[in-house]
Amino acid sequence: MSRFKLTIEYDGTPFVGWQRQPDRMSVQQALEEAIRGFSGEEVTTQAAGRTDSGVHAKGQVAHFDLTRAWDPFRVGEALNYHLKPHPISIIACEAVPESFEARFSAIRRYYEYRILNRRARPGLEVDRVWHVPAELDAGPMHEAAQLMLGQHDFTTFRAAECQANSPVKTLDHLAVIREGEHVLVTAHACSFLHHMVRSLVGSLKMVGEGRWEVGDMKKALDARDRSWCGPLAPSAGLYLTQVDYPETAPESAA
Amino acid sequence: MSRFKLTIEYDGTPFVGWQRQPDRMSVQQALEEAIRGFSGEEVTTQAAGRTDSGVHAKGQVAHFDLTRAWDPFRVGEALNYHLKPHPISIIACEAVPESFEARFSAIRRYYEYRILNRRARPGLEVDRVWHVPAELDAGPMHEAAQLMLGQHDFTTFRAAECQANSPVKTLDHLAVIREGEHVLVTAHACSFLHHMVRSLVGSLKMVGEGRWEVGDMKKALDARDRSWCGPLAPSAGLYLTQVDYPETAPESAA
Repeated sequence: MSRFKLTIEYDGTPFVGWQRQPDRMSVQQALEEAIRGFSGEEVTTQAAGRTDSGVHAKGQVAHFDLTRAWDPFRVGEALNYHLKPHPISIIACEAVPESFEARFSAIRRYYEYRILNRRARPGLEVDRVWHVPAELDAGPMHEAAQLMLGQHDFTTFRAAECQANSPVKTLDHLAVIREGEHVLVTAHACSFLHHMVRSLVGSLKMVGEGRWEVGDMKKALDARDRSWCGPLAPSAGLYLTQVDYPETAPESAA
Repeated sequence: MSRFKLTIEYDGTPFVGWQRQPDRMSVQQALEEAIRGFSGEEVTTQAAGRTDSGVHAKGQVAHFDLTRAWDPFRVGEALNYHLKPHPISIIACEAVPESFEARFSAIRRYYEYRILNRRARPGLEVDRVWHVPAELDAGPMHEAAQLMLGQHDFTTFRAAECQANSPVKTLDHLAVIREGEHVLVTAHACSFLHHMVRSLVGSLKMVGEGRWEVGDMKKALDARDRSWCGPLAPSAGLYLTQVDYPETAPESAA
């Protein structure tokens, strides 16, 4: 048996999300059909992050097994051919030991959230950003974000349907910067709760608009109560950008 | 009569280009229908650049006249409402004197061309970039670009169907830089010939691949013969980013 690790970019717009659903196309289904297309094998893929419908990926990681020892480069090429016309691209394909698990071996996940912060609606970035017309002040947003760092009970910023055993997570990095008309939020952690990044961004937006004080973010966290969360930021602005594993962790992860 | 200047962003993918065509939707038609939608007036708009099918804009400029003196802010808001669901957004709307002509008053046009330079096809940037799998060396491309600056007969880099009276243009800026997986070409001039930027980029790509020497770019220019041009770069990578007018020319135009 040969195990392969894929690094995947996709536009989440046309998909029901990563995970297979009975009636609508998922990234997982498109990928598994492409694997069958070149290898003839029916496989189940496992991903580092089960992105929701409309959420994008620049660096999703998944693994799967084949009975034959294919050349990884050729697997990547064959997948990109068979994935057409889906907006899914295999950026890298590597042979990995059978101990590698895309989901359970991951030691850090990186997300980026893109807000288009201008009066006019998006023309070129439809389905790629959260359009927020009211002016956001990125400074207080970043300040409030720093209050979220470290290990906390993130119940406030967790979807009602979240299946994680514990609401306690350790947030390594949460930063807010302005780049022209965009406000970018980056978040790094070993793992996240369901809707955690979008819940944090929706709450930080309240700070950016001046409707919350910086300290209200901490009060919301401490309340450990979903009703204290700001409105959930839409899926279109969220990107899974990178996943680290013990053997690949870069030393300069920002 | 009131004249309005619009700054417009659009995704060129679904359009036949800027200019009205009898059978397929153009940006001009979508815009003129939106103007009629809020004002009831049938107008003809004029744009600074008649972008081809699939070419995008971050800062196209157009003007039109209305009989009533509307508030420009409200015109922009009304247009963005009536332009839905087209991927066209009015970034700015200003009242201008009747002497202002979007096309003929322009003193400088700015284009950007985006190449995705990696083995894997685009997942997130389908229809937004030219995908070039072979590695490009941006250094020689930039060197070759410098040979194009100034006033020249650009017959080599001009579409057969170009309607300009003269093939002589003055190129103020042509630069090639690498940004990670992207190679970006920027071009500034008072005006361009039809297909000029895409012809230059297609030829610069030959240099980047090592199939042309840097000096071959100059030989192609000097030949004043379309058959010396490299293959035309596709429309999807091209963006009209800015148009300057005497009253709005920034001092720090890079």
